[in-house]
Amino acid sequence: MGNPGKREIANLRDETVAGNGLLNRRALLRGALLSAGVAAAGSAGIAHADDSVGADAPEWMKTPGRPFSAYGTPSHWQEKVQRIFTIAPGRAGTGVSRTPLHLLEGTITPGGLHFERHHNGVPDIDPGKHELYIHGMVNRPLAFSLDALQRYPMETRIHFVECSGNSGIFNQPQPQQVTAGELNGLLSCSEWTGVRLATLLAEAGVTKEAKWVIAEGADAAAMSRSIPLEKCLDDAMIALYQNGEAIRPEQGFPMRLLLPGFEGNMNVKWLRRLNVTDAPVDARDETSHYTELMPSGKARQFMFLQGAKSAIIKPSFGMTMKGPGLYEISGLAWSGSGRVSEVEISADGGQTWALAALTEPVLSKALTRFRLPWNWDGRPSTLMSRATDETGGTQPTRASWIAQYAPGQGYHFNGIQSWSIEADGTVKNVYA
Amino acid sequence: MGNPGKREIANLRDETVAGNGLLNRRALLRGALLSAGVAAAGSAGIAHADDSVGADAPEWMKTPGRPFSAYGTPSHWQEKVQRIFTIAPGRAGTGVSRTPLHLLEGTITPGGLHFERHHNGVPDIDPGKHELYIHGMVNRPLAFSLDALQRYPMETRIHFVECSGNSGIFNQPQPQQVTAGELNGLLSCSEWTGVRLATLLAEAGVTKEAKWVIAEGADAAAMSRSIPLEKCLDDAMIALYQNGEAIRPEQGFPMRLLLPGFEGNMNVKWLRRLNVTDAPVDARDETSHYTELMPSGKARQFMFLQGAKSAIIKPSFGMTMKGPGLYEISGLAWSGSGRVSEVEISADGGQTWALAALTEPVLSKALTRFRLPWNWDGRPSTLMSRATDETGGTQPTRASWIAQYAPGQGYHFNGIQSWSIEADGTVKNVYA
Repeated sequence: MGNPGKREIANLRDETVAGNGLLNRRALLRGALLSAGVAAAGSAGIAHADDSVGADAPEWMKTPGRPFSAYGTPSHWQEKVQRIFTIAPGRAGTGVSRTPLHLLEGTITPGGLHFERHHNGVPDIDPGKHELYIHGMVNRPLAFSLDALQRYPMETRIHFVECSGNSGIFNQPQPQQVTAGELNGLLSCSEWTGVRLATLLAEAGVTKEAKWVIAEGADAAAMSRSIPLEKCLDDAMIALYQNGEAIRPEQGFPMRLLLPGFEGNMNVKWLRRLNVTDAPVDARDETSHYTELMPSGKARQFMFLQGAKSAIIKPSFGMTMKGPGLYEISGLAWSGSGRVSEVEISADGGQTWALAALTEPVLSKALTRFRLPWNWDGRPSTLMSRATDETGGTQPTRASWIAQYAPGQGYHFNGIQSWSIEADGTVKNVYA
Repeated sequence: MGNPGKREIANLRDETVAGNGLLNRRALLRGALLSAGVAAAGSAGIAHADDSVGADAPEWMKTPGRPFSAYGTPSHWQEKVQRIFTIAPGRAGTGVSRTPLHLLEGTITPGGLHFERHHNGVPDIDPGKHELYIHGMVNRPLAFSLDALQRYPMETRIHFVECSGNSGIFNQPQPQQVTAGELNGLLSCSEWTGVRLATLLAEAGVTKEAKWVIAEGADAAAMSRSIPLEKCLDDAMIALYQNGEAIRPEQGFPMRLLLPGFEGNMNVKWLRRLNVTDAPVDARDETSHYTELMPSGKARQFMFLQGAKSAIIKPSFGMTMKGPGLYEISGLAWSGSGRVSEVEISADGGQTWALAALTEPVLSKALTRFRLPWNWDGRPSTLMSRATDETGGTQPTRASWIAQYAPGQGYHFNGIQSWSIEADGTVKNVYA
């Protein structure tokens, strides 16, 4: 964040909407000036700017730039914008890498930075040999090549995918001082295009007894999950494209199951089989993992939906506030149940709340960017955000969330998150 | 496109909505089965599928896959999905590369495949040294570092960018037999995030006499354009992010001007200067280029808006229809004036038309994907699409469009495009 201006900030008393300096959503557009730009009348800067290609022009205006490229990559100045690893890149096997949310803006995750969760590495599937089988309790088992699927009617929708272990770190007794990407980066959002699974199931002819569909990936873990038939007949998609191009290898090339709003693990990548059954199979990843351990010692199984959730990204750990003045608070909100209906922000540790502006279009089961102006007075403050979705689902406090479970349970965390802004401008993760 | 099924297609007579087999938008979802999947009951395929990791499992299930990666890339099986060049990659200077629209789906263009138009290569700008100057007819000239701009309130919007020379090839006397990407690929669509230019101009204080803003890039061509002040105070943005990450070098890293709906060339990349003036400057790219040559021999200048336009992408040149049967026609529609309100499709060379389904959300000045089922009877047919926008703007025939101009004028083509489907399933570009 830039330097505050030297001029006095416009009178903002009428714009206050909640305690400790939260302003009306439109305040920054109504002439409450940031003055972050440096006044430069007659300065050397503007003098040079008037002389485009003279001696004082920047060096990159003096020689031809680099040539065209077949498939572009980010600027080399952005090389630190990478996925965040728990195990070093280059190691195969099981693990995760996270989307660096604190280095991104907007809502779409570029393909190269979509989070990864692999159970035995990324298979190198020949798309000409891969087939999707639909079998089990169907009248007509079917096999689909990629070419065959290309023939079907397609749908295009923007949806997030979130690992159910995302933000599990909030179960730690002490707040961890790590970035928003490390806290919440098992979360990405893409434009997905593919074939509605209901279309294929209609063609196979699901029998009356069918209640579940067992999805299996073609990776070396044969990753499997049991999915209620009802979801498969609703908005489930066999996704072939991600942000316009063929789905990336780490997200399931040549095809993945997309179950909008359901925990990431069920969105089976490298999808190979859909076995229609009358019962779940108790696969490894729905027994030993991805269950919720309750205080009784029993585990709650088949909790599929990702709850209403939000995180303030700007400011967040690793950034430094540059003195008192106007700032824009921004972040991401989402819910597995539908559209985000509102995001409230508090700058006084939850005593008072104000509604943030939601960036249109607010889409169902997609990331929503929220923003709100804040006039920071320079004193220690605690920022919080709370999302509510169109079904009324909202975020509990961290303490209420923790109290539901046995110690150490880390799936489906959707408690309220808090940042403490210190007097020196540093930002800390706190349990408020 | 896949093989047609062997079973009889469901009775589709009630679904017909226009001549030569165009069906109701919902026909394919109401049980009109494609049967492109291969019935495989008891076949070897399903037998193998039941035995996930046995001897017959695909090779990629038998060994661990490849490891995590810091910044992902498309599958090596997709290496032919590249930008389309008129001059070979590796050559600097002026030219274009096109988005391969015929190999993509949905509406978002992945960053690596956004079209390129450079006038003297891609500059390698140090983002720590780059500044944006706002000067001229302002009360307070300002200089903004990238850090300073990061402090301002941001907006996130999905918009297309289209070169005004896109589809200029339709001015050729004979229809060129090239792909949809070669015809229309100076067109891409991204989620852009940045600072509204109006916010910065308010801070600089535009004087009463001001009417134009001269935008200049920091490339070795010092590419400049004159922009009406009205647009700069409307929806113009200083874009810093593209599809969530820092804007790509080929699209203007570290910042570009985004003028939604205006011809691509005005969306000045590597933006360095905004000089507020009372008159345009007649820059090279608004006199020798990007003007419309009229039959009188005079050139019409400052035609900024990209018109309502559409193109059928599937099927298109290079694809082959695999015999009579059900297909989904799909394509892209857009307008520089706002939202696409409807897309009509004809399968009989323009005699009858049916409304295509538009993929939600339909956004202003963004690509819109349209789809419609078609029951092809196997006889030669001519497919056409026609978009209309919310202001009533629509597409003329190619002949009417051509008649407006002097021969060879190739900017702002938005005439109706046509594909001929031959009896053998090949697809040809035709002037119908």
